[in-house]
Amino acid sequence: MQKLIYFFGEGPRNPTERSDLLGGKGAGLNEMTCLGIPVPPGFTIATAACREFLETNAWPKGLEEELKEAIKRLEKIMGRTFGHAKNPLLVSVRSGAKVSMPGMMETILNLGLNDETTAGLARLKSGSGKACLAATTFADDCYRRFKEMFTHVVGGAVPQNPWEQLKMAIDAVFHSWNTPRAKTYRRIHSIPEDLGTAVNIQVMVFGNRGEKSATGVAFTRSPSTGEKKFFGEFLMNAQGEDVVAGIRTPEPIEQLAKMLPKAYASLMEVQKKLEGHFSDMQDIEFTIEEGKLYLLQTRTGKRTAHAAVKIAVDMAKEGMISRADAIRRVNPLLLDQLLHPALDPDHGKPVIARGLPASPGAGCGKVVFESRKAFEAAQTGEKVILVRKETSPDDIDGMHAAQGILTATGGMTSHAAVVARGMNKCCVAGCGDIVVNLKAEKFVTKDGREVRAGDVITLNGTTGEVVLGAVATVPARIDDDFKTLLMWADEFSDLEVRANADTPHDAAVAIDFGARGVGLCRTEHMFFELDRIPVMQEMILSKDREARIRALDKLEVMQTNDFYGIFKAMEGYPVTIRLLDPPLHEFLPRKKQDIEALAQTAGLTYEQLRDLIESMTEVNPMLGHRGCRLMVTYPEITEMQTRAIMNAAVKAMSEGIETHPEIMIPLVGTVEEFTIIRDDIKRVADEILLPTPNLSYKIGTMIEIPRACLVASKIAGEAEFFSFGTNDLTQMTYGYSRDDAGRFIQQYRAAGILKDDPFMTIDQEGVGELVRMTVQAGRGENSMLKIGVCGEHGGDPKSIAFFHSAGLNYVSCSPYRVPVARLAAAQAALLDMETEIIPDVTVTEIKVKEKV
Amino acid sequence: MQKLIYFFGEGPRNPTERSDLLGGKGAGLNEMTCLGIPVPPGFTIATAACREFLETNAWPKGLEEELKEAIKRLEKIMGRTFGHAKNPLLVSVRSGAKVSMPGMMETILNLGLNDETTAGLARLKSGSGKACLAATTFADDCYRRFKEMFTHVVGGAVPQNPWEQLKMAIDAVFHSWNTPRAKTYRRIHSIPEDLGTAVNIQVMVFGNRGEKSATGVAFTRSPSTGEKKFFGEFLMNAQGEDVVAGIRTPEPIEQLAKMLPKAYASLMEVQKKLEGHFSDMQDIEFTIEEGKLYLLQTRTGKRTAHAAVKIAVDMAKEGMISRADAIRRVNPLLLDQLLHPALDPDHGKPVIARGLPASPGAGCGKVVFESRKAFEAAQTGEKVILVRKETSPDDIDGMHAAQGILTATGGMTSHAAVVARGMNKCCVAGCGDIVVNLKAEKFVTKDGREVRAGDVITLNGTTGEVVLGAVATVPARIDDDFKTLLMWADEFSDLEVRANADTPHDAAVAIDFGARGVGLCRTEHMFFELDRIPVMQEMILSKDREARIRALDKLEVMQTNDFYGIFKAMEGYPVTIRLLDPPLHEFLPRKKQDIEALAQTAGLTYEQLRDLIESMTEVNPMLGHRGCRLMVTYPEITEMQTRAIMNAAVKAMSEGIETHPEIMIPLVGTVEEFTIIRDDIKRVADEILLPTPNLSYKIGTMIEIPRACLVASKIAGEAEFFSFGTNDLTQMTYGYSRDDAGRFIQQYRAAGILKDDPFMTIDQEGVGELVRMTVQAGRGENSMLKIGVCGEHGGDPKSIAFFHSAGLNYVSCSPYRVPVARLAAAQAALLDMETEIIPDVTVTEIKVKEKV
Repeated sequence: MQKLIYFFGEGPRNPTERSDLLGGKGAGLNEMTCLGIPVPPGFTIATAACREFLETNAWPKGLEEELKEAIKRLEKIMGRTFGHAKNPLLVSVRSGAKVSMPGMMETILNLGLNDETTAGLARLKSGSGKACLAATTFADDCYRRFKEMFTHVVGGAVPQNPWEQLKMAIDAVFHSWNTPRAKTYRRIHSIPEDLGTAVNIQVMVFGNRGEKSATGVAFTRSPSTGEKKFFGEFLMNAQGEDVVAGIRTPEPIEQLAKMLPKAYASLMEVQKKLEGHFSDMQDIEFTIEEGKLYLLQTRTGKRTAHAAVKIAVDMAKEGMISRADAIRRVNPLLLDQLLHPALDPDHGKPVIARGLPASPGAGCGKVVFESRKAFEAAQTGEKVILVRKETSPDDIDGMHAAQGILTATGGMTSHAAVVARGMNKCCVAGCGDIVVNLKAEKFVTKDGREVRAGDVITLNGTTGEVVLGAVATVPARIDDDFKTLLMWADEFSDLEVRANADTPHDAAVAIDFGARGVGLCRTEHMFFELDRIPVMQEMILSKDREARIRALDKLEVMQTNDFYGIFKAMEGYPVTIRLLDPPLHEFLPRKKQDIEALAQTAGLTYEQLRDLIESMTEVNPMLGHRGCRLMVTYPEITEMQTRAIMNAAVKAMSEGIETHPEIMIPLVGTVEEFTIIRDDIKRVADEILLPTPNLSYKIGTMIEIPRACLVASKIAGEAEFFSFGTNDLTQMTYGYSRDDAGRFIQQYRAAGILKDDPFMTIDQEGVGELVRMTVQAGRGENSMLKIGVCGEHGGDPKSIAFFHSAGLNYVSCSPYRVPVARLAAAQAALLDMETEIIPDVTVTEIKVKEKV
Repeated sequence: MQKLIYFFGEGPRNPTERSDLLGGKGAGLNEMTCLGIPVPPGFTIATAACREFLETNAWPKGLEEELKEAIKRLEKIMGRTFGHAKNPLLVSVRSGAKVSMPGMMETILNLGLNDETTAGLARLKSGSGKACLAATTFADDCYRRFKEMFTHVVGGAVPQNPWEQLKMAIDAVFHSWNTPRAKTYRRIHSIPEDLGTAVNIQVMVFGNRGEKSATGVAFTRSPSTGEKKFFGEFLMNAQGEDVVAGIRTPEPIEQLAKMLPKAYASLMEVQKKLEGHFSDMQDIEFTIEEGKLYLLQTRTGKRTAHAAVKIAVDMAKEGMISRADAIRRVNPLLLDQLLHPALDPDHGKPVIARGLPASPGAGCGKVVFESRKAFEAAQTGEKVILVRKETSPDDIDGMHAAQGILTATGGMTSHAAVVARGMNKCCVAGCGDIVVNLKAEKFVTKDGREVRAGDVITLNGTTGEVVLGAVATVPARIDDDFKTLLMWADEFSDLEVRANADTPHDAAVAIDFGARGVGLCRTEHMFFELDRIPVMQEMILSKDREARIRALDKLEVMQTNDFYGIFKAMEGYPVTIRLLDPPLHEFLPRKKQDIEALAQTAGLTYEQLRDLIESMTEVNPMLGHRGCRLMVTYPEITEMQTRAIMNAAVKAMSEGIETHPEIMIPLVGTVEEFTIIRDDIKRVADEILLPTPNLSYKIGTMIEIPRACLVASKIAGEAEFFSFGTNDLTQMTYGYSRDDAGRFIQQYRAAGILKDDPFMTIDQEGVGELVRMTVQAGRGENSMLKIGVCGEHGGDPKSIAFFHSAGLNYVSCSPYRVPVARLAAAQAALLDMETEIIPDVTVTEIKVKEKV
């Protein structure tokens, strides 16, 4: 029979096996016990028991017997008896999955109390007079807490029989794996559904046992800034739940040194030991019972992106970890947080309140007071700030939907703070300056200002400020640690990272973020600008080729300047320019008054123009007359754009700016489309370049039509580069219109049909198969072929890992995603190094390669 | 140096090589010379010369020398000299490509005439008095014709130097390959662009040399009915162009027996010999010069579908060809002509004129008098009849666009008749009952009735009747020859042919045409009927699941009846039913008054319903919330349809009707979609079938999303059949919206980017690659997997050949296409047999297999 219960200190030694079996909390308790750190005795029911229970709705065979044995063993250790009226053993029952899910699972403290044992507990330590009274108060406090928690978690009345209590509590922990909020959390954080939770049963120690007792949580370094400084909060005479629940606002850990100096000294020693042992910042829970320190939990601490970067770089510099480890430690998606714009410090808008800077970044939106409303508003694209007294796990959906979260109570480790950091969302917590009135849907600041639902506020999660009105933002800045980490990352990467940039400004930002070129410059974005769209419209409404060419001549002047600016910003790096892609009707007005205005300018009647626009409208514009299909119809547009690109390049070169234009033809599905347009481009370009023979350029194509993948070898025989447009490729491979699929993609994910949103993370099985086929066929035909990707997936870490394994040369993403992509590319290369079979390289050599 | 000129009788013996080199006309002249049939001496300039000329714009090296040699040789044979004033050699110069393109290329007769040689020609045969006058008239007639033709074909003035005439004429023939009308013809008939034309230069014989001279064209069997009867027309004292041009109405060939009995007897002997030699019906041109017969051309005759079938079956029965040959002889696309409805014989509408039944079938539309207008009308979907005095190659586009063609002059072999038959379009030619006034845009019948542009007429191409007004049609009937041919075809086929049928009526038609089951029953078509759409709308507008189920219950009753009717019609054969596919918003109204009406019924305000419809509208409905995506959202629709199918099947079985339902899930892109919906269906179906265990059914899927092809092996592990939906698969693989791509597909074909319209003929390279991958992966996983196709391509012969080679089990097409598909499937199997390497089977065995 499978062993299902492990005493702390007796679990398996292999860390992965251990946490698979015992969950994160159980593994930590096990390890701490081994390290000789004071932990109240206890044991863990393995996750396998939960899995079997959820499947069969019954306890695994033998579990009850093992449980009885384990409790007996605890009784022996403690010299107390479970359910004994005079000398009762009390335990806590806590969930603990492999992956930490704060606040999502259930905890019951003080289990074993009933009317009898409560009296026993009081008697156990009572003297007479005041001490007797305190002991009774303490025991009653424990019993009250127990009954509240039990009722809340298990439901129904509390049985007097402690064994029944225990079994019901274990069942409740098992069931809590499948609550809607746990499922939501797992969906948001992509945690597998089939892990199950372990159950930790541990002798109670009491932080609420009077004035020498306390309870708290702490981090070995700052989870907010990463600063190498012990950081935490505690409450005197309290049980652990009080800190996390945000009911009382706790005191900073430094205060503990003054109040319980000996316990504080032990705590400092323990935290140092733990961080050293795990080589990572630890998030610990402790209780001090009448002056004695107990550790109740240790786990790798969640942290802000800023902290993650600083801790990783610091630890590598301190020699605790290798540079490769430092790179592996930082979740690239978290970096996004550092790259979002901050509030303009000189915004001049009134700061109406201040709270704790619980999760950095800035957020702006209309105030809502209900999570449901936040969720609904997000569905319609409206930006909101969720304001609550405090948050609870039921608020998950609303927090996810909001731009930021503001709570009136709770500390830096309150539910709101922890969850917001996990979601990479700005949060101001414990804002005692405001009083929230949910019913009246308003909050009032301490100077009496009322803010109602619908009013716009801005949160600064980095400073804790609440600002009335919408505040302008200033671009993100990369600090030195960040730069260091990315520099290290580049040393490991095989993939080059480029940026999608449509303007000289975008290009400059991209260069600042370390982009090695432009992978996608969308020329149509230039035409949507206010001063250009009339010229574009003039071109589209031209009655003949001559009139069209006159309009194109005007556009050419503008485009030449655009390209020149981008070439200048990207000096020395390649710039991939995609020729005009969208259907022409996108440039024409839809609203009646706009059509009337344009008709007047164009010398048409309203009816004529309306009919013309109607005749151009397409049933499925996504699959319509656009991309290279337009170029076949209107070669003069291609010629104009080619001239603009080449003249800009010639100008840049004449000023000594090294320029590498790469002209990209969109929406190619047949090699004939490519060659016809390529020949057009070449003819025009070569004529312009005649006096500048040292300027070389490339002509390539987007690979975004499934058919292009199927005839990739033919196209590769003609093209100099491929750039996967995985947005459109995903649309066509799945048959999902990105504009419409929102209706069912969420439902599909909930039903388990889709693991990820395929527009966020590339579908490796389907779309990815086309990518692999294309790379193989393309390189087989043309070994010099450069291959990249310029869809949204180019900035998604999971997708980047795939592109690395598929053998691409580069990824291109939005400028603010460039750092994310650089780090993800390095991680992909490191992962590859681990899984590669390298028979001829010794471990020493790899270490050298890792630049430790 | 490559030999470029071949004397008649001296070309290569291999028929393919010969016609590649010499073109069709040249090959025929060559062969006839070999057979000892009287042919005026001459030679052919090979097609290679034309190709080189078109590429380099210069004559190939050595051509001029060869030409001089060849003319010298002709001079020697005839004892005349080219350009000699007294004894001039005259020649014809005719184009002749490998593939016959009647009327498209250029011909010049009587070349070699100038002011001097014309006098010489007249003197050559002149006596005195009347004979002298006749000879002069004859010579002048020849010179006039020559000058007219030369001016028309070459352009500019006629040079006096016969060598210059000859070289210019040859140039003109070369150039004529690339006239717009030749290109149009090739595009319509899918003739390769790079064949080039040969040039035939032949000694003139004169059908216009007086009362014992004549010229004519004839067929060895009737090209219209296939009847085994020599069939033709001639003109006394005329040159060949007169017959074809339709200027004079010729006499039937039987008359020739009376007028020139000796020549007629020779002609009968020659035609018999030619048909026997070529084992096919021949189309011949002859000239009788002063009583002596000359053959000027023989080629396999074009024929109506009806004639093609009859000739093939007759010849097989006569033992001239094998049954396999008979099958190969008939172009499946031509069968379509036999399958189109004919006019209701009891229509009672006035027959206002009668002409020649030049091309069978029926056509109805508004009268237009200009080809351009016919073309424009077709663009907007309007049906027109093109009415002309006679047609010319410039009318190609208009003829193609019209429903039928009516001409006032010209015979059964006039341009209009030949081209209409080739286009499979009904035509009444030589209708002397009408007078066409192009300028006034009207025609007047002999009893004075005026028909103006825009009036509706109906043509009966089978009888030659012109009817005023629109006439009802009666279904096509399959005659015995047709049945025989298809019966033979089925013996060779590997592919099963099913029909797409949405109603019991469609199913019955399909069975009549030999379908072996229904490959696609589109259930939504049932919901679009007038009495059902309100219930469908009620279902869509349901406020909750309960209301939706109430509406679905009503639909279920209707659907059960539909399915029962189809099962009954298809007794014993499988019926594949596709569950609801289109997005729900397709069932809701678009027009204001319809929305108002529905809002009232549904108890909504106009604004509410309008907003609801707007919110359901999709940017790209093709890629939207439809197919299995709807079934995931609304499992109750799937359940209703499953109940309807199964209850109908149970009812049919209870009446002794053998039933094989196959339930098909549309738009599957992931195996999870399939299994979720499959499980839903199975649960409902198995409950209904509990009392009827002998009723088996299958659950399979459409393969129409590119991703489904990429994960085919997974889906094959769960599905019992695949049916390729090549319409949608083509849309997504190419990224072409079928509704929008018309804008550029024609342009793409003209530019050579697309060879065929990919919605007509499957794209073997791209979409076909997905089909091949899917078949391989699907069968690899599930060797029992049945695979078919139910897109439009299922009725296209070229596509059917591909599906055969890809190893599909069946094709499904519209009922009227079933015979086409059966024949195409047999041809594909035969082609496979030819190309297969069959090492163990002797030729005798193959003969047995062919059932000769």
